Amino acid sequence: MSDSLQTPTSTVKRGPKRAQYDVATAYQIIDETLLCHIGQQVNGQVFVTPTFHWREGEYLYWHGHSKARNTHGAVKEAQKVCINICELDGLVLARSAFHHSVNYRSMTLFGTPEVIDDYAEKVRHFELFIDKVSPNRWSQLRPVTEQEVLATGLVRIKIDEASVKLRAEGVIDDEADMDWPVWAGVMPVAKQWQPLEQDMAQTTDYPEPEAPLAN
Amino acid sequence: MSDSLQTPTSTVKRGPKRAQYDVATAYQIIDETLLCHIGQQVNGQVFVTPTFHWREGEYLYWHGHSKARNTHGAVKEAQKVCINICELDGLVLARSAFHHSVNYRSMTLFGTPEVIDDYAEKVRHFELFIDKVSPNRWSQLRPVTEQEVLATGLVRIKIDEASVKLRAEGVIDDEADMDWPVWAGVMPVAKQWQPLEQDMAQTTDYPEPEAPLAN
Repeated sequence: MSDSLQTPTSTVKRGPKRAQYDVATAYQIIDETLLCHIGQQVNGQVFVTPTFHWREGEYLYWHGHSKARNTHGAVKEAQKVCINICELDGLVLARSAFHHSVNYRSMTLFGTPEVIDDYAEKVRHFELFIDKVSPNRWSQLRPVTEQEVLATGLVRIKIDEASVKLRAEGVIDDEADMDWPVWAGVMPVAKQWQPLEQDMAQTTDYPEPEAPLAN
Repeated sequence: MSDSLQTPTSTVKRGPKRAQYDVATAYQIIDETLLCHIGQQVNGQVFVTPTFHWREGEYLYWHGHSKARNTHGAVKEAQKVCINICELDGLVLARSAFHHSVNYRSMTLFGTPEVIDDYAEKVRHFELFIDKVSPNRWSQLRPVTEQEVLATGLVRIKIDEASVKLRAEGVIDDEADMDWPVWAGVMPVAKQWQPLEQDMAQTTDYPEPEAPLAN
């Protein structure tokens, strides 16, 4: 397999100096995030749908209602969809409005989704998904039923056509503006897990769930 | 103006009980967030682009390079684009995998973008944008130059065809699972502004910037 995810479609046209096509970096962004946005068209109209994703090997996976637009609907049309993941890491507050920017990690992936119907494979993947959301949780849960597995669609897309854009640095101002009397620098932002809110119907104390490694 | 943003295109098909079409709720989600995802098609291929947005009245605005795909490119094709904003508020950890869910605020907007070329109107909007990102910042900055204004595209879309989906509640488990011995509840997540990182080239102490009200 090539280590580059660059194709004519995935080539970044604006801000190309921040773009890269390295497969390891794409995997890292996929693994350290929970939420992606899937863009597809239905009868000529574009729809963007947010959903959770996970990865195994060279594939990105998502799930949904087995009849949903972004699971079987996307596959039926055999179209190349576009998925973006973007995490905001900070505001870059420069001395001029024009040089304001943001620090972020963004990954854009193109590919034709493929439905996975095999029952055992679906269950295996739902375990991977649950344990991404909260490590070691699957084995503690009430086992899935056949009806639940059949009602849930599983879709994957090969990660072989993508781009990554990253910004992770301080302000870049014009030389002439360096003495302008305004605070300049970065205001970082981070997603943080908050104190757990236990179900009020639950009176027994069970071990608390682990937070995901992803955000 | 109607208070409902519902149209055939914006009608939510999956999970309709979580859907609403109230304009005030749509405005609220737009105003309390910074990042949106714009979906559009170019020569039949869908692209999803993350960018910042802001609102004035009935319109959502964004900016970009004046030649970028998501500013003038979107307008040239006069297509109806789709914009989603989605903020994750928590993981809903149920007693079965199937009833796991997430708390979130999501707004999906459809419309045909319109470029704003008027110079003064562009400058006025860049001020609204900067002051959304950091209140009261614009007036402290080195003033924009004509070249900067001309290099920056400004686009808006009318907020009259949209849907909102919200989940903000605890676990909803099957009755039969209520005694299953596993922790159940919500793990909330929040974006939080971190300590400022002042530009190392800056040796004078200026007043610190305000954090945005949005996340």
